[in-house]
Amino acid sequence: MIRFNNDYNRGAMECVMNALTQSNPVSYAGYGEDTLCRGAVDKIRALCAAPEAAVHFLPGATQTNFTVISAALSSVQSVISADTGHINCHEAASIENTGHKILELPNTDGKISAEQVRACAEAYYLGGEPEYLTEPKMVYISFPTEQGTIYSLAEISEISSICRQYGMYLFVDGARLPYGLCADGSDITLPELARYADAFYLGGTKCGALFGEALVITSNYLKRRFKAHMKQNGAVLAKGWLLGLQFSAMLENGEYFSAAKRANEFAVRIREAFENRGVELWVKSPTNQQFVIVNRAQKEFLAQDFIFEEVCEVQNGTVIRFCTSWATGESKIDTLTAKIAEMPV
Amino acid sequence: MIRFNNDYNRGAMECVMNALTQSNPVSYAGYGEDTLCRGAVDKIRALCAAPEAAVHFLPGATQTNFTVISAALSSVQSVISADTGHINCHEAASIENTGHKILELPNTDGKISAEQVRACAEAYYLGGEPEYLTEPKMVYISFPTEQGTIYSLAEISEISSICRQYGMYLFVDGARLPYGLCADGSDITLPELARYADAFYLGGTKCGALFGEALVITSNYLKRRFKAHMKQNGAVLAKGWLLGLQFSAMLENGEYFSAAKRANEFAVRIREAFENRGVELWVKSPTNQQFVIVNRAQKEFLAQDFIFEEVCEVQNGTVIRFCTSWATGESKIDTLTAKIAEMPV
Amino acid sequence: MIRFNNDYNRGAMECVMNALTQSNPVSYAGYGEDTLCRGAVDKIRALCAAPEAAVHFLPGATQTNFTVISAALSSVQSVISADTGHINCHEAASIENTGHKILELPNTDGKISAEQVRACAEAYYLGGEPEYLTEPKMVYISFPTEQGTIYSLAEISEISSICRQYGMYLFVDGARLPYGLCADGSDITLPELARYADAFYLGGTKCGALFGEALVITSNYLKRRFKAHMKQNGAVLAKGWLLGLQFSAMLENGEYFSAAKRANEFAVRIREAFENRGVELWVKSPTNQQFVIVNRAQKEFLAQDFIFEEVCEVQNGTVIRFCTSWATGESKIDTLTAKIAEMPV
Amino acid sequence: MIRFNNDYNRGAMECVMNALTQSNPVSYAGYGEDTLCRGAVDKIRALCAAPEAAVHFLPGATQTNFTVISAALSSVQSVISADTGHINCHEAASIENTGHKILELPNTDGKISAEQVRACAEAYYLGGEPEYLTEPKMVYISFPTEQGTIYSLAEISEISSICRQYGMYLFVDGARLPYGLCADGSDITLPELARYADAFYLGGTKCGALFGEALVITSNYLKRRFKAHMKQNGAVLAKGWLLGLQFSAMLENGEYFSAAKRANEFAVRIREAFENRGVELWVKSPTNQQFVIVNRAQKEFLAQDFIFEEVCEVQNGTVIRFCTSWATGESKIDTLTAKIAEMPV
Repeated sequence: MIRFNNDYNRGAMECVMNALTQSNPVSYAGYGEDTLCRGAVDKIRALCAAPEAAVHFLPGATQTNFTVISAALSSVQSVISADTGHINCHEAASIENTGHKILELPNTDGKISAEQVRACAEAYYLGGEPEYLTEPKMVYISFPTEQGTIYSLAEISEISSICRQYGMYLFVDGARLPYGLCADGSDITLPELARYADAFYLGGTKCGALFGEALVITSNYLKRRFKAHMKQNGAVLAKGWLLGLQFSAMLENGEYFSAAKRANEFAVRIREAFENRGVELWVKSPTNQQFVIVNRAQKEFLAQDFIFEEVCEVQNGTVIRFCTSWATGESKIDTLTAKIAEMPV
Repeated sequence: MIRFNNDYNRGAMECVMNALTQSNPVSYAGYGEDTLCRGAVDKIRALCAAPEAAVHFLPGATQTNFTVISAALSSVQSVISADTGHINCHEAASIENTGHKILELPNTDGKISAEQVRACAEAYYLGGEPEYLTEPKMVYISFPTEQGTIYSLAEISEISSICRQYGMYLFVDGARLPYGLCADGSDITLPELARYADAFYLGGTKCGALFGEALVITSNYLKRRFKAHMKQNGAVLAKGWLLGLQFSAMLENGEYFSAAKRANEFAVRIREAFENRGVELWVKSPTNQQFVIVNRAQKEFLAQDFIFEEVCEVQNGTVIRFCTSWATGESKIDTLTAKIAEMPV
Repeated sequence: MIRFNNDYNRGAMECVMNALTQSNPVSYAGYGEDTLCRGAVDKIRALCAAPEAAVHFLPGATQTNFTVISAALSSVQSVISADTGHINCHEAASIENTGHKILELPNTDGKISAEQVRACAEAYYLGGEPEYLTEPKMVYISFPTEQGTIYSLAEISEISSICRQYGMYLFVDGARLPYGLCADGSDITLPELARYADAFYLGGTKCGALFGEALVITSNYLKRRFKAHMKQNGAVLAKGWLLGLQFSAMLENGEYFSAAKRANEFAVRIREAFENRGVELWVKSPTNQQFVIVNRAQKEFLAQDFIFEEVCEVQNGTVIRFCTSWATGESKIDTLTAKIAEMPV
Repeated sequence: MIRFNNDYNRGAMECVMNALTQSNPVSYAGYGEDTLCRGAVDKIRALCAAPEAAVHFLPGATQTNFTVISAALSSVQSVISADTGHINCHEAASIENTGHKILELPNTDGKISAEQVRACAEAYYLGGEPEYLTEPKMVYISFPTEQGTIYSLAEISEISSICRQYGMYLFVDGARLPYGLCADGSDITLPELARYADAFYLGGTKCGALFGEALVITSNYLKRRFKAHMKQNGAVLAKGWLLGLQFSAMLENGEYFSAAKRANEFAVRIREAFENRGVELWVKSPTNQQFVIVNRAQKEFLAQDFIFEEVCEVQNGTVIRFCTSWATGESKIDTLTAKIAEMPV
């Protein structure tokens, strides 16, 4: 069986493993106050053209999401998200557990628009900040989204501009960031992201590392005492250098991006294989997640050799997801596309 | 400079690194639902003679502490701890952040007694469970304690018996568990711990792993939906097998225990070197943490070559801590004891 | 100007004021442990035919809602509500502030159906209680709803039956309960409510009292330590007898119900006056809240003499709400209906 | 039986009852946005010489405490309090329930000193704001304290000055404020309190009102969105005018203060009666609460005719508390002192 069910079913890139082995006989300062983390911070600041940004390494994405959100919001403030947002659907109500409401906006292919955000903020502010409503204080988007789609530079900059108009933070979940940045047609860069977002992260877990996310905070307000928020939420790794070294290794030689680009290309090959068979797409994604609508016979046929995710039932079949990743080998794509070619109608 | 400042300044045991390398080309199911975790669970259940225990792997100790405590308690229940308990002093009020009061009891060398626990529970129950008080529902102790001391089997069993009498959970923080179990004079075993505690953990981070703690839950009530509590608190590692494989590797060949035993012996050599110079102990510890009281000249002399922790100021000097670990080499102990022998009076 | 904007713009019924005056020279035990509260508890248990029910008096409805919900739910459990539910729209995210997600279901005239509730529970349980989802553990409905509509006995009993099937609590917000019970066409009684709901309350604030709600808990699990939850949430009034005496007074002579019935009749007269002018109803309500759609000229004409609430803008005008209450005098209805009769088209 | 067990066993002053009756036929705007509240706000601002202060009316003291504290603190900030502070002992961990640690300082007769507060803040700031500690951000004191003692102007101003040096808020629990202000030897006034504290309240429940506390906020930061915090915590009374009118009535004719002064004098008569019998004081209080140490025979003798509170057991007997209040009649003091005079040795 070949796993295409997600992008975190394999360990780490060779460069990460080598760096890990190399660091093993050395002793380091704890809690991320070490030379390896400092090196990684410098690299990330440089890539983002954001020398003043705070960069923190956290073990996981759910932790990163609720730590940032709860650090940013007072108890009468809330966060805007697409109804399909990861924080709204996949994290066991971890945001509400920190005491904050998620203001859900209906998504279009996983995305929300500046116009929707404006309407949500206006309803609160034109209403005179009524005491019985929470204040929308942050906008959370994912890049790419849960559906694999991406925001354009224009879309991000418009959302950012609404955020600034209403004093809201823009927080970008980048668990799959390089897949988005390197997607065909993507027109946004790290320095632009750093300029438009108040906080965002470079995903590690799904992008070549064993685990870990690199959070970039550009908002001065959010920087304050952030590490105490991390500590309180169990997000300060004792052996912090393990996170720094992984990001250094992946960024050093650019494999962080080149592997994502390759994974996207493989994903598009999968999509095209389905399209060639006349299979309907659930959403057209340029990144490493592909969603197609198959019938029962097709699903069972593919399930003979491959593990994939069943997303939901729709009118004309089942939505299934195939993920590639930095670890996907070309031969597995060949095997899959060959199988798709033989798939029943 | 040689680091004796803590027991988490080095990567992982060779056996862990090898297992990690070996697993790298293989794909696994996510979130701890993989074969490596299942293997580690089986080993731990066997070692604990607790075939019904739930075993979960969490990335870090702070997370483990607040996840267990908040999963166990309703909002009007609280946890009893020594005033020096890790959860009360070193975790940025993470327990209070989940909504629960810590009922602090004064410690004796880091420990609390069954009698103190009984008095605390009685005050509540003899008072008729008054509505204006929180209900003490859990006792948290560390084995070994923050001061490196250990509870005897008799002490643990008495505390456990008070807990059961009053319907309180006993939760044992085992971030340094093997150092305690393998200490000279320690008379408690894993099966006994599993019998007397409702939940406890085998520390990984400080005991030979890169990171991770293995939580053992014997209370049926606490088992229920525990993984959802983990998920909500960001404590479910996407690549969960990374945790399972580390515990398997360390337990497989017994190095988890033998390395702790060696570290304890090294620690005692350090203590004896100080005692030989007439230096006063702050507390007499049989485990890998040693606390001595030095004067300014001594502190500065030692700081020339070694990194250690300053704990607090006392009447007759500064309390400093030296930690050994699974990674400490004998030559470093030789260097340190030689230096101590030359220390000014 | 005559206020029809809400049902809490006047003090209390004469019988309440008299009881208050009578109690003033007497000293009582605190925190609701007094004879007046005991008398009120007995009356309410008798009216509900629920001799085992726990009855508590809380100062306000928002407090009652979040105290019940947070007392009932563990941190990985959530509450189902209509998207228009009071807890979801009017209470400044007080439920999320206690750490719980509201699972919103789309409403039909303010109501949700047993079928919707079943689908929501099934999605969770058929999915195998996935760790990344919160567990739906309570259903919150209002009787009458925010739109003034009422559930039939059949509807409530079906929702209750789904709740019991899935181990969920049914909690009925009764801030306006007597208006619902005494509505034309209402077929539910207090004993039935006590049988089908695990907790519900008899509203005081909007129904004749100065302030206060009488919470009835029939679920044994919810009864446990409930007063500690109240205390923790500031919901134990020091001079608790003030709440007991108000409910006793209103229930003693049945004015609690007769006044609600009269208010409903007045409300229907208002509705009919609008209908006679061909004004469209937003929702057809049999209780003390009436919602009609008026144009700008009509709104401004009515606003000359009356205070009412603007609910929202719709295609063909503005939805405005007129509330009657236990305190509404017939002459004010005459004045209003006369004005409506003169209203521009 | 005569109740001396607390200062909230009677309804309200005549002036309050009259105002209540007078307001009953009138309709008002809700949620404290009415003319009666505005009048009370003006009176309080004038008495405090604080025209810019925000004044809010909340139903109860526990609510006021946790609403202010949780509104003021971020999740990594904590509140300093005497270990005997009301929030630490009598409110069912309501502060921790909002996610904040109480940093307990040992009390001296219920009070803490500026020096203790400084040491607590310094430990944090000299330590470099370590990430594993919460930030002390507020100091909570009671005036008078739980033991009936009072702070001098010099003490309050020193604590305030330390607070400002370290950027901490000073919050004064004034549930019994007039008893403190009017105590023999008290040298602090409302304008001084408004100058030195960032927030404090004029107690109503224990000082002549049926219920309610008048919160004065002078800190601009704390003023922001405070009413949303109140709403979220269920502390916005629907019929808010009921609170405004009570404070207006009590302050109008100065009875708020004169009744407290009389209660203090009565309390001192009780204390002197005990002193005349050679009974030891537990603490020497100039306010309406008196604490004496009696033996078993004395306690039982007094319990024949009076209800009082047993505070705790000490070496030489039981500490019992007698409370007077605005409602205490002189004849009851005569009866009590006569009984004390006959008390066994």
